[in-house]
Amino acid sequence: MASIATRLTRALDVRHPVVLAPMAFAAGGALAAAVTRAGGLGLIGGGYGDADWLEQQFAAAQGARVGVGFITWSLQRQPSLLTQVLRHRPVAVMLSFGDPLPFAEEIRRAGAVLVCQCQEMAHVAQAVNAGADVVVAQGAEAGGHGALRGTLSFVPEVADHLAAHAPDTLLLAAGGIADGRGLAAALMLGADGVLMGTRFWAATEALVKEGHHRAIVQTGGDGTLRTRLPDIVRQLPWPPGFTARIRRNAFTQRWQGREAELQAAVAEEGPRYRQAAEAGDPEQTGVWFGEAAGLVHAIEPAAALMERVVGEAAARLRAHGGAQPG
Amino acid sequence: MASIATRLTRALDVRHPVVLAPMAFAAGGALAAAVTRAGGLGLIGGGYGDADWLEQQFAAAQGARVGVGFITWSLQRQPSLLTQVLRHRPVAVMLSFGDPLPFAEEIRRAGAVLVCQCQEMAHVAQAVNAGADVVVAQGAEAGGHGALRGTLSFVPEVADHLAAHAPDTLLLAAGGIADGRGLAAALMLGADGVLMGTRFWAATEALVKEGHHRAIVQTGGDGTLRTRLPDIVRQLPWPPGFTARIRRNAFTQRWQGREAELQAAVAEEGPRYRQAAEAGDPEQTGVWFGEAAGLVHAIEPAAALMERVVGEAAARLRAHGGAQPG
Repeated sequence: MASIATRLTRALDVRHPVVLAPMAFAAGGALAAAVTRAGGLGLIGGGYGDADWLEQQFAAAQGARVGVGFITWSLQRQPSLLTQVLRHRPVAVMLSFGDPLPFAEEIRRAGAVLVCQCQEMAHVAQAVNAGADVVVAQGAEAGGHGALRGTLSFVPEVADHLAAHAPDTLLLAAGGIADGRGLAAALMLGADGVLMGTRFWAATEALVKEGHHRAIVQTGGDGTLRTRLPDIVRQLPWPPGFTARIRRNAFTQRWQGREAELQAAVAEEGPRYRQAAEAGDPEQTGVWFGEAAGLVHAIEPAAALMERVVGEAAARLRAHGGAQPG
Repeated sequence: MASIATRLTRALDVRHPVVLAPMAFAAGGALAAAVTRAGGLGLIGGGYGDADWLEQQFAAAQGARVGVGFITWSLQRQPSLLTQVLRHRPVAVMLSFGDPLPFAEEIRRAGAVLVCQCQEMAHVAQAVNAGADVVVAQGAEAGGHGALRGTLSFVPEVADHLAAHAPDTLLLAAGGIADGRGLAAALMLGADGVLMGTRFWAATEALVKEGHHRAIVQTGGDGTLRTRLPDIVRQLPWPPGFTARIRRNAFTQRWQGREAELQAAVAEEGPRYRQAAEAGDPEQTGVWFGEAAGLVHAIEPAAALMERVVGEAAARLRAHGGAQPG
C-alpha cells in the first residue's frame, strides 16, 4: 500500500496525511475509528455539543485513537463539554467558527493537539495567537458551514503567513478534496495534509440516512449552494459571515431568497425540517455535503476509500515528479 | 530554465503550460506578446468588442504568436468582429460566457484553436458539443466575471467528464492560480495547464493604471468580492448566473446590497465610475483582480514572473515526486 510522509504524519504519528472533518451529527465514533484504523486520524463531530451523544460516540470508537471537533461559538455556551471530552484523552481537539483562545490552554494542558479551522486570514492570526498546532485552511467548496475563500488560493496564502509567523504550525487544506488528485494538489499548495468531510460523509460508517447517501451519489458538484436557510429553520444563532453549503433541493428552492418568510414560518417549518431529516428525506431538509459531491460515485467503507485516495495521490506525485530543469 | 511538458505544450507548441487570460481592457497586445515570448501563450482580451482597439492591440503584438478571447454573448451582437480578428491569424480564439457553437466552425476553418471557458458542468457539455480543442475550468476565485464553483473541485470533475466524453480535449485550470504552487496543483488535479489572469494583470505590460497596480500589491486574498455592481453601473446586459470579482473598496462598500438604488442612480454614477477608472482611482470604480491577489507582492515583467512560476512548479513537482509505494 502506498504512503505519503509529511510533517503531519510525523507529528500525529499516522500513516496518511488525511484527517476526518468532525462533521456535526455525521462523524460519529464508528467513522472516526474507521478513519484512524485506515491510517488517518478520525475526529468525532462534537458540533453544537450534546453530552450524552458525545459519550456514546467515544464509546463507539472502542478505544481507537481519535480526536474531537467543536463549533467554537457553541462551545462557549457550555464550556464544560470540553472538560468532559478531554477525559477521553482525545489525540486532537479541533475548533471552528470563533476565537479558539479561551479553550487553548485547557486543550494544551490535556496533551491534545490544538487544531484551528480558518476561513479567512483574520482567523489564521487568531489561531496563531492561540498557539494552534495545526491550522486548517477551509475553502468555500466545503460542505456544511464555511465562508467565501476558494481553497486553491487560500491554502498557499495561509502557508505564506505561517511560514512567516509560525513556521512550526502545520497546515491542512479543506474544501473540495475527495480523491487522490485533491490530496496531491493540496501538498503542492503547501499543505501538510488534508481534512476531508464530504468524501467521508459518503462512507458506510457515517451517521447519514440512506436517502441522503443515495442523494450524494446522484448529485454533481453544481448541485449544492451556500445558504443561511438551515440555520434559520433550526433557530441557530450563527455569527454573520458563515453560511452552510448543502444540496440544492425542494427546501432550498422554496426558501432561498425568502429568508425573512422562513423566519416568520419557523413554528411550522422547524418541525417539518427535523422530521424530514429524521426520515432521510433528501428534499425537505438540509442535506449536508459540498462541491466534492461531483467526485463521489459510491458509498464505501472508509478503509477502501482511504486506500484509493492515498494510492491515487502517490501515483500522481510520482508521475509528475519527472519535471526536469531545461 | 525549468520546463514542464504536457499535452498542452505539445498541442500549442509552447514551452510552458501557461496561457494568459484574455482580460478585457487589461490584456493588450504588449502583454500577450510578452507572455508568448516568455514561453506561454498570450491571448488579447477582446472583451465586449471594439474593432479599433483590437486592431491597435494586434499591431502592438508586433507579429508575436498570440490568440484572442471574447465575451460570447457580446460577440453575438457584432459577429463581424470574429471575421476581423481571424484575418490576423490568431493561434487560438477563446470564448467565455455563452454558447460557443455559433462561432465554432468559423474559428476552426481559420485554423485557430478553439478554447471554451466554462463555469459549470452544463457549459462543459456545450463546449464539447461545439468541438472545443481546449476547455478552461474557471473557478469562483478568478478575478473578473465568473460564477460559483471552486477551482479545486471543479477541475477534476471536468477532467472526468472530458475523459469520458472527449478524451482528446485539453483542460486548463483557471481561478486562484498565481504561482508555481497553483500550477503544480492544477497539474495534479488533471489539468494540462493553467490560464492565469490576476497574476498577469499585475505585470508591467498590462494595460492597468498605476493606482490600480498599487492596489493589488496592498490587497490580500480576502479583499475581493463577487458582485453585479460594475455591470449595473456600466449598463451591461450580463446574463444571470455571472458576477464579477473585483476589489472591495469604497464603491462596493457603498452599493453592495443596494443594487436597485445604483440602477436608479446610473445617470450620475455611470460617468463617475468611468472617470475614476480612467484616473486609476482604486476606490470609486471596479478594480479587476481575484483572490490570487493575496499571492501577488510586486508588479513585474511577464517574463520574470513566468520564469519564477514555472521554476517553482517544477521544483515542487520534483520535491514531491519521491512518494513511494510502502
